[in-house]
Amino acid sequence: MTIILFSGDLDKAIAAFTLATTAAASGMDVSIFFTYWGLNVLKRTTFTISKSQNFLQKMFNIMSSARLPISKLNMFGLGPWIMKKLMKKTKMAPLEDLMKLAKELGVKYIACTTSCSFFGVTKETLIADVNEFAGASTYLAEAKDSKINLFI
Amino acid sequence: MTIILFSGDLDKAIAAFTLATTAAASGMDVSIFFTYWGLNVLKRTTFTISKSQNFLQKMFNIMSSARLPISKLNMFGLGPWIMKKLMKKTKMAPLEDLMKLAKELGVKYIACTTSCSFFGVTKETLIADVNEFAGASTYLAEAKDSKINLFI
Amino acid sequence: MTIILFSGDLDKAIAAFTLATTAAASGMDVSIFFTYWGLNVLKRTTFTISKSQNFLQKMFNIMSSARLPISKLNMFGLGPWIMKKLMKKTKMAPLEDLMKLAKELGVKYIACTTSCSFFGVTKETLIADVNEFAGASTYLAEAKDSKINLFI
Repeated sequence: MTIILFSGDLDKAIAAFTLATTAAASGMDVSIFFTYWGLNVLKRTTFTISKSQNFLQKMFNIMSSARLPISKLNMFGLGPWIMKKLMKKTKMAPLEDLMKLAKELGVKYIACTTSCSFFGVTKETLIADVNEFAGASTYLAEAKDSKINLFI
Repeated sequence: MTIILFSGDLDKAIAAFTLATTAAASGMDVSIFFTYWGLNVLKRTTFTISKSQNFLQKMFNIMSSARLPISKLNMFGLGPWIMKKLMKKTKMAPLEDLMKLAKELGVKYIACTTSCSFFGVTKETLIADVNEFAGASTYLAEAKDSKINLFI
Repeated sequence: MTIILFSGDLDKAIAAFTLATTAAASGMDVSIFFTYWGLNVLKRTTFTISKSQNFLQKMFNIMSSARLPISKLNMFGLGPWIMKKLMKKTKMAPLEDLMKLAKELGVKYIACTTSCSFFGVTKETLIADVNEFAGASTYLAEAKDSKINLFI
């Protein structure tokens, strides 16, 4: 299975990692290709703003995996906060745990090089779990032989 | 064909059901897996708010299949209203008719159990047409053998 | 490969055309099915508003390929403007160039007839590169035999 994670929304990231870990646990090979806003999911929790970045790059890099918005009812950050509380209450695994599990199960992380240079994201600002930095052709080569391909 | 309907937007739901009914009419087996905001499409038209729900669950359950927003130009509910009027004028089938047709053609509805418990959605608040309540592994088993898999 | 381009966001359109051109360059057959907001990507750059259109159709037709919004940080049109400047700076190909390349590489454009009539979009208001006007069944026939199917 391959997943393109284009979105940087918390709810979509959780959906992607739920599918990825369930598939990997059942023995499938799974790759996630992080592009555009999806790169935020791979960020270390600290700020990654630098002087050389322009306005949009700074706006983008204020976000990190610890503060992803949600795709609906975001309510300026209130939504994700309530969502995390609710996940704890209903005993759903938080994104961090799903990502830890994904790594243990061998899910492959590919960060899109074009998006990285576009948003001024450097290797150092992303988590160490990234397996590869590559472009669209690497994704396509894997997707061609996959049974399930999703764009999230 | 399998479709994950993650979105609760009227326009995306109509796209999903147009594809599903067209595929089923041509003899394909079609399953739709309703997760997150997509669960709203399966709601009965009455309110489903109860005292035991927290704030986000209440916000979520105010929505029902009769009042889905649209993904662009929603304009606080004006967009969907104009869209429905326009669908009538251009003789497009409304979502209710597409869903009736889908059932007649044997499209399978699977409601995501994790999303149900997360949003405080009970079996009673959903339409009777739901065939199955199941998790990601059920989806993956079907998707693996499908020719077309989409995440909407 | 088949892509349903449902979104009319600049960032998603660029992602779709990056994948399409990369795939076509490596020898794959690629079709893009433009539906709903995705139709905006095919618009000529001039206004396409006419008196016979209703309010939502007018709102829809104000948009054209030259002024697509972005899915996050749109900031009332400031986001796309900064994004285009940044693309120039980081030497990323703009959407126009990707679309020119796509045509040279033989990527097939299919415009959804239902969406066209719904939004009051006529053949004349779209670019000449459109290969075909067709419905969901045409898409499904191609998707069934494709190795990669994405809904963007």
